[in-house]
Amino acid sequence: MPITRGRLITLEGGEGAGKSTLLSGLRELLRAHGIDPLMTREPGGTPVGEAVRAVVLDASRSELCPEAELLLMFASRAQLVREVIAPALAAGRWVLCDRFTDASYAYQGGGRGQPVDRIAELENWAVAGVVPDITLLLDLPVSTGRARAAGRGEADRIEVEADAFFERIRDAYRARAAAEPGRFRLIDASATPDAVLAQAGAALAPLFGGVTS
Amino acid sequence: MPITRGRLITLEGGEGAGKSTLLSGLRELLRAHGIDPLMTREPGGTPVGEAVRAVVLDASRSELCPEAELLLMFASRAQLVREVIAPALAAGRWVLCDRFTDASYAYQGGGRGQPVDRIAELENWAVAGVVPDITLLLDLPVSTGRARAAGRGEADRIEVEADAFFERIRDAYRARAAAEPGRFRLIDASATPDAVLAQAGAALAPLFGGVTS
Repeated sequence: MPITRGRLITLEGGEGAGKSTLLSGLRELLRAHGIDPLMTREPGGTPVGEAVRAVVLDASRSELCPEAELLLMFASRAQLVREVIAPALAAGRWVLCDRFTDASYAYQGGGRGQPVDRIAELENWAVAGVVPDITLLLDLPVSTGRARAAGRGEADRIEVEADAFFERIRDAYRARAAAEPGRFRLIDASATPDAVLAQAGAALAPLFGGVTS
Repeated sequence: MPITRGRLITLEGGEGAGKSTLLSGLRELLRAHGIDPLMTREPGGTPVGEAVRAVVLDASRSELCPEAELLLMFASRAQLVREVIAPALAAGRWVLCDRFTDASYAYQGGGRGQPVDRIAELENWAVAGVVPDITLLLDLPVSTGRARAAGRGEADRIEVEADAFFERIRDAYRARAAAEPGRFRLIDASATPDAVLAQAGAALAPLFGGVTS
């Protein structure tokens, strides 16, 4: 019997949206369905990617230019796709990824002003055609998310940006969700963690065989 | 009086071509002409670039995919151009760079098989239109260069490749030199260090005012 390709589920959202909490909940939910997902993240997820992550998030590197930031994100992603995600999917494994290509459209595109066609061109060859089956977008007002994230200790190079930067990111994320309603599920991330998990579970239900009950 | 833009001189060549020795000699030659050049290198030349260099050359990262390698090289280059090269040239400073964009066409293109149009597209936006005034290509047979480089201690991730890899790199470099004879100067790097410096000095003479004596 041929192996059924696994599923790629990505989580997207701004600062303080509750991605980490939801990732833990989703792992348990998938396990309850007999699925042990491979958990990974961006930037990172491989030795090369984690080294790149350290460069990108280092708060002392405020001089990092937008072009280099975009290229570093896609370097991490190219490696993650080939070393981890594509082999896992081919082996029938489900993959749960904390951010993916949509994050570059939101952060490097909306946030840093890199042109959309430049990002699309990189996606075209660097990501080797890997597109998520479902993308959960954790959406909430910037002020709510930043208030949540403020309690977490020292801010990284991206978290220190001004509100307007994060408003542009939210706008870019919502625009992508509106343009691809078949893939995106918009989650109200201002709800309680349990309510967020319930929304996410309902969004994924069709992947388990169609019964949402 | 308006500041005259500085000059960008790049050195290219395979392993063991004698770039480091020539760089020292060229710095002295330029100083003798009253020019104090800014010396830099690729990948590297900035804090971001040196961190990227460590990732790219780490011999333990044999799993680095060609796409990620190409993206990392251009990330380092994008940062170097904006943080170091472009401001120096604008301020009238001469810049002597140990490898530049041609190295991606040779190593990631010829060596790793990344398509030329992909590299050209990256050059188009990541390098911000910065093209060397003169590129000195240190050319020599692969076997000669590798025999020289073998005495230098532990090989990095690129130096451990097979001869065929370096033959493709040499071919790609020579093809670029043939396609842009106005910018490239082919140097016979199998000659003695003094003879190589003399060739390079003659190649640069027009930049000093046109008298080659």
